Amino acid sequence: FLFFPLQDSLRGRPKEIPHNEKLLSLKFESLDYDNIENQLFLEEERRMSYMGFRCLEISRWVVCGLIGFLTGLIACFIDIVVEELAGIKYQVVKQNIEKFTEAGGLSISLILWAVFNSAFVMVGAIIVAYFEPIAAGSGIPQIKCYLNGIKIPRVVRLKTLVVKVCGVICSVVGGLAVGKEGPMIHSGAVVAAGVSQGRSTSLKRDFKIFEYFRRDTEKRDFVSAGAAAGVSAAFGAPVGGVLFSLEEGASFWNQMLTWRIFFASMISTFTLNFFLSIYHNKPGDLSSPGLINFGRFESDVRNLVWRITSMRFPCSSYVHRPCLQVMEAMLVAAVTATVSFTMIYFSNDCQPLGPEHNEEYPLQVHTQHMGKSQAQSCIVLMYLDKRICHFHCESCYLLFSTTYHSFSSIFFTSINVVRTILPKDLRRNTFDIHGSYNPLTLGLFTLTYFFLACWTYGLAVSAGVFIPSLLIGAAWGRLFGILLASITSNATIWADPGKYALIGAAAQLGGIVRMTLSLTVIMVEATGNVTYGLPIMLVLMTAKIVGDYFVEGLYDIHIKLQSVPFLHWEAPATSHWLTAREVMSSPVTCLNRIEKVGTIVDVLSNTSTNHNGFPVVVQPAKLCGLILRSQLIVLLKHKVFVELARSRLNQRKLQLKDFRDAYPRFPPIQSIHVSQDERECMMDLTEFMNPTPYTVPQETSLPRVFKLFRALGLRHLVVVDDQNRVIGLVTRKDLARYHLGKHGLEELQLAHT
Amino acid sequence: FLFFPLQDSLRGRPKEIPHNEKLLSLKFESLDYDNIENQLFLEEERRMSYMGFRCLEISRWVVCGLIGFLTGLIACFIDIVVEELAGIKYQVVKQNIEKFTEAGGLSISLILWAVFNSAFVMVGAIIVAYFEPIAAGSGIPQIKCYLNGIKIPRVVRLKTLVVKVCGVICSVVGGLAVGKEGPMIHSGAVVAAGVSQGRSTSLKRDFKIFEYFRRDTEKRDFVSAGAAAGVSAAFGAPVGGVLFSLEEGASFWNQMLTWRIFFASMISTFTLNFFLSIYHNKPGDLSSPGLINFGRFESDVRNLVWRITSMRFPCSSYVHRPCLQVMEAMLVAAVTATVSFTMIYFSNDCQPLGPEHNEEYPLQVHTQHMGKSQAQSCIVLMYLDKRICHFHCESCYLLFSTTYHSFSSIFFTSINVVRTILPKDLRRNTFDIHGSYNPLTLGLFTLTYFFLACWTYGLAVSAGVFIPSLLIGAAWGRLFGILLASITSNATIWADPGKYALIGAAAQLGGIVRMTLSLTVIMVEATGNVTYGLPIMLVLMTAKIVGDYFVEGLYDIHIKLQSVPFLHWEAPATSHWLTAREVMSSPVTCLNRIEKVGTIVDVLSNTSTNHNGFPVVVQPAKLCGLILRSQLIVLLKHKVFVELARSRLNQRKLQLKDFRDAYPRFPPIQSIHVSQDERECMMDLTEFMNPTPYTVPQETSLPRVFKLFRALGLRHLVVVDDQNRVIGLVTRKDLARYHLGKHGLEELQLAHT
Repeated sequence: FLFFPLQDSLRGRPKEIPHNEKLLSLKFESLDYDNIENQLFLEEERRMSYMGFRCLEISRWVVCGLIGFLTGLIACFIDIVVEELAGIKYQVVKQNIEKFTEAGGLSISLILWAVFNSAFVMVGAIIVAYFEPIAAGSGIPQIKCYLNGIKIPRVVRLKTLVVKVCGVICSVVGGLAVGKEGPMIHSGAVVAAGVSQGRSTSLKRDFKIFEYFRRDTEKRDFVSAGAAAGVSAAFGAPVGGVLFSLEEGASFWNQMLTWRIFFASMISTFTLNFFLSIYHNKPGDLSSPGLINFGRFESDVRNLVWRITSMRFPCSSYVHRPCLQVMEAMLVAAVTATVSFTMIYFSNDCQPLGPEHNEEYPLQVHTQHMGKSQAQSCIVLMYLDKRICHFHCESCYLLFSTTYHSFSSIFFTSINVVRTILPKDLRRNTFDIHGSYNPLTLGLFTLTYFFLACWTYGLAVSAGVFIPSLLIGAAWGRLFGILLASITSNATIWADPGKYALIGAAAQLGGIVRMTLSLTVIMVEATGNVTYGLPIMLVLMTAKIVGDYFVEGLYDIHIKLQSVPFLHWEAPATSHWLTAREVMSSPVTCLNRIEKVGTIVDVLSNTSTNHNGFPVVVQPAKLCGLILRSQLIVLLKHKVFVELARSRLNQRKLQLKDFRDAYPRFPPIQSIHVSQDERECMMDLTEFMNPTPYTVPQETSLPRVFKLFRALGLRHLVVVDDQNRVIGLVTRKDLARYHLGKHGLEELQLAHT
Repeated sequence: FLFFPLQDSLRGRPKEIPHNEKLLSLKFESLDYDNIENQLFLEEERRMSYMGFRCLEISRWVVCGLIGFLTGLIACFIDIVVEELAGIKYQVVKQNIEKFTEAGGLSISLILWAVFNSAFVMVGAIIVAYFEPIAAGSGIPQIKCYLNGIKIPRVVRLKTLVVKVCGVICSVVGGLAVGKEGPMIHSGAVVAAGVSQGRSTSLKRDFKIFEYFRRDTEKRDFVSAGAAAGVSAAFGAPVGGVLFSLEEGASFWNQMLTWRIFFASMISTFTLNFFLSIYHNKPGDLSSPGLINFGRFESDVRNLVWRITSMRFPCSSYVHRPCLQVMEAMLVAAVTATVSFTMIYFSNDCQPLGPEHNEEYPLQVHTQHMGKSQAQSCIVLMYLDKRICHFHCESCYLLFSTTYHSFSSIFFTSINVVRTILPKDLRRNTFDIHGSYNPLTLGLFTLTYFFLACWTYGLAVSAGVFIPSLLIGAAWGRLFGILLASITSNATIWADPGKYALIGAAAQLGGIVRMTLSLTVIMVEATGNVTYGLPIMLVLMTAKIVGDYFVEGLYDIHIKLQSVPFLHWEAPATSHWLTAREVMSSPVTCLNRIEKVGTIVDVLSNTSTNHNGFPVVVQPAKLCGLILRSQLIVLLKHKVFVELARSRLNQRKLQLKDFRDAYPRFPPIQSIHVSQDERECMMDLTEFMNPTPYTVPQETSLPRVFKLFRALGLRHLVVVDDQNRVIGLVTRKDLARYHLGKHGLEELQLAHT
């Protein structure tokens, strides 16, 4: 039941639960960010010398370096494979056009193109739908949940990573209206979760290293670093990566941790740039980014932002069966190809540049410089329109910039790549020359691409929403700028639509994902220009305020649709009248310090309650500790019974290592055989329980409970009366239940599905 | 006794306490980052509607905007006044030279110059030494302490701000080897503390606004924003400002708070740029920073960094009496002027540029473009050497770049300013032309300036250490680069000393202040170039590791010399064997829920214990709340006694407002008169105490206690036994006492001084 596929609920509202945004699922387990400081742990810590701690610290740095390196490598791999495959596709289609256009068979070229794209998308959809449904989408909501402290099944597994990487390559090469940035964040997180544990359960290999890190606390820190490295590799924004991780995850800000996260981010960017520059045969370029200066920006942008509220990606796909999912994905790919082809066919506002450009950039050079997909669209266009656009046709550049070397990459991918790919004057043209775009084309593009992106978003493919959002935003931003310039008489002030494109891109993306601080920094870092910081920040703030008025952000909608018990930063403002007494779960299943094995097995086997933490008490009900289900299971598995310890004196004492080896996939209670005789034995929990769990009095207000819970990343918080007797237990779902709705404080219902 | 001047201990080791880095002073009070959730507070919160909370949120944003705006304005004011005063000084000296040099009286010019500088420094030193000694230095250690949760007397007062601003103007105009960046951070913090409270105690004005923010929790958040705005204004680095605040202060990272801090930072940079661009008559330039590209960087920098360990600013000034402090400052100013003059006189490696420069930049233009102080030194040089250097003499440019338009400002001040001031080719020359510098001059400069900076640092003037550090680092970095280029045969690879200058500057500054993440981001933002992120980060890491091996950072040394109970991010690694029982203060002075007034007065008047928090118990010793000294004092002042309430039924009930009005300067107990009759009355604390203080069992390990304390920003943590009876109290000093020394865990002694 724990491995209920996330994807099903991600893809829409499952039929069996109506209105599940008003429900809170009980199926998700929490991560424990609080160390279980039991006797075993304290003994180990006390044994460890200062040098031991230094070594641990050094290994943390090594792990973060590795995470950054591998994440950068993966980003590099995706980039290169996409480029190579797109190149092959381009070559074949080009040859075909050259062969058949003379014979008038343009539709054959269209079909070939559509078939190619569909085939790639099919492969991508098949591996996602059949092998690992959780690899669909960007993975950012899942990583947000993980960093928030919720265990999402299978989200950080090796298999997920492989499917994700292959899937994103296929979707991008297949020409879908998607980006590869979101999946990078997920990939980084998976790498981090794998590397930091020093073993792979999927590959059945244990390298016997980093065993100390095999617990939620440490693993979550590393996953933060991995997500940051992913952002860093995707956008070339190491600081933005750090802020993304902190914004989404770390409740307790630790200087050294942040510093390590930053290290991973830096290494990731550096690795990506290093290998890409080698691939592009310009190894010297690795440290010389071409900073793109968009010039000055002085206009009032707020007028623009109201638009974004009406432009939002609905998650509107209701297809559940894998084979249907695959077919839907192929259909979308074919439609995307056809629409693009048709639009090119009927668009005729390509503007040839002057002769000096023709000489400076002959056709073949451009084919290589501009990136294969642009070249592809341009060669199609060239043959269709029977005139040579010399690949400077900016409309088609904008139109077909969804794959690798995209328009958007000027804002958002590694600056270095942009510099390698785009000739300087083209870059200037794209952004600065006003009037090169036909407003009609831009409007048509915005609409078409918007609907394509919406449709694509619900597909069972690995893909991100960043690039399409940016592209749509840039298109309508530019459109707005052009219209503004044509309306106002004083053209010099409002004259640069390139700035509106940037601001529009920020507004669109901000309106969809509702990230604030980190997105500002990412955009500032990607444009390499702090000048736009203030306008971008204002736009993102406005987008968030206006958007929040209507509906939550895309990722939050996803999280809510899944009924995940997500904890926000603070308790709802008007929740001071609630106290721990009203919030807590009660009565609580408590265990005695020396408890009968049979009782423990029965408690664990009770599927109706299915608790994960049990307060340990001494009579009369005085709290003396807290023990977790996972610990009890390891104890039962190793048969740590009082009677057996007495009879077999030479029995090996249970060590922390035994718990670490079982982490994180503890066996279910059903798989552990306990004989009838053993049921009568006793278990002494003293050594294994956490003797000092955090407690609150029952009169504590909800915001206070919330703050303690969130700041320390707790999983269980015991509520006691003034005699230190256990009267309740607060867990994540008890706090996530309350949220501010339209009509004040609302309480979600708990659902076992 | 609470108002013991900080400056005295800052200026060296006070004689009465030997080895006070092994002591922990008890004289500092803590801030309370935990809300006192008593009945009054909860009633107010419960009364408040959702709209009320929204209004509060909006006022927080308004306050942050104001903080940013005012901080930017102050930075702008300092910049402009410095420039104007330096201009006047330059004019007078120039006229003097023109008049007297013909007559051979060079020494008169020297004396005039020295007198001018001394006069400015004298004014700066007098206001600091006599009016507000806490305004000396950069103020960063004090702000660090404040953000850490320690109340430093008088540090965020209006008077301090005024003295600080005037003082820093005088020191910079006086030609001392100081910068104006550190003081900006302090100024921003003072602005924040003032604006957010909606009143000024110094001016005796209460604007009756922002009353909700009159408590430590809210105030500290705003001070974080102010410090960030200060960094942002000083370095043009809004993201760096946010990270500085978070690195130094916020233990509990809150998304909205961070976002507000970022807003303040952005507004601050924007305001500064806006007004400066108006001042420089280039209002259009406000959003077009001249990004400085230092080219590529490929060398191994670690070799350089070992140097920084031996170059560190000792705080070696032992002068205590104000008049001596003033005289010392004047002496330093005179010596600085003389040394500079002498060095110019004997240096003869000025390299005149080609004729095209002469035409392009005639003398008068340059006098304005290069900044007054450079021009000043150059005109001196010009007359001395009887040859025209056309103000392109780069050695003297480097040598005299300590005041406003400095060499270092190319790295570090607002990019926009740099662009306005420095002609493009000069900027290029300064950084790119290799061999323009005579290594001997550079070496001599490094040494001289290093010793001047060290001496200056101990003075009673408002001044920062950033610019001198950067300058020294840049000088020896460049020197190293030149030497490396002359040694290695392959000059093309190692040829650009400008990069070594940048890296050297980073290393030097990092070695002194030991900031890591925020400093990296500040430098990246100031250079506008993410390329140098990785090398700068590596250099800063190395500098920190190497430096920490020998001694703590400058700010930490200061904090330690003052015996401030500073809490680091984590408990010492090897402290798991300590538990709350060993750490806590015991026995604790407890109060009954209904307590006799006489007892309370006696407890508060007891100067030997001088506790600030008192657990409230019901017999037998069961914990039921926590009350603070400040609350008791307000209760006593308003005579909230049970008997009086009965007799005067119409008496106004005490409200939260009464506590807020008294905040933050609660009167001492001695000032409150309690008659002998009143001593027999009873006080009911139920309504005013915090009924749900955080508690820990006595077996809790020190790291666990530390984490709870630090994460929630507590001031008092009650230790209870398993019956919920109070057995001890953990406060800041109990935790700060333990630190990792050379020989493992060490315990500092507590001192009442």
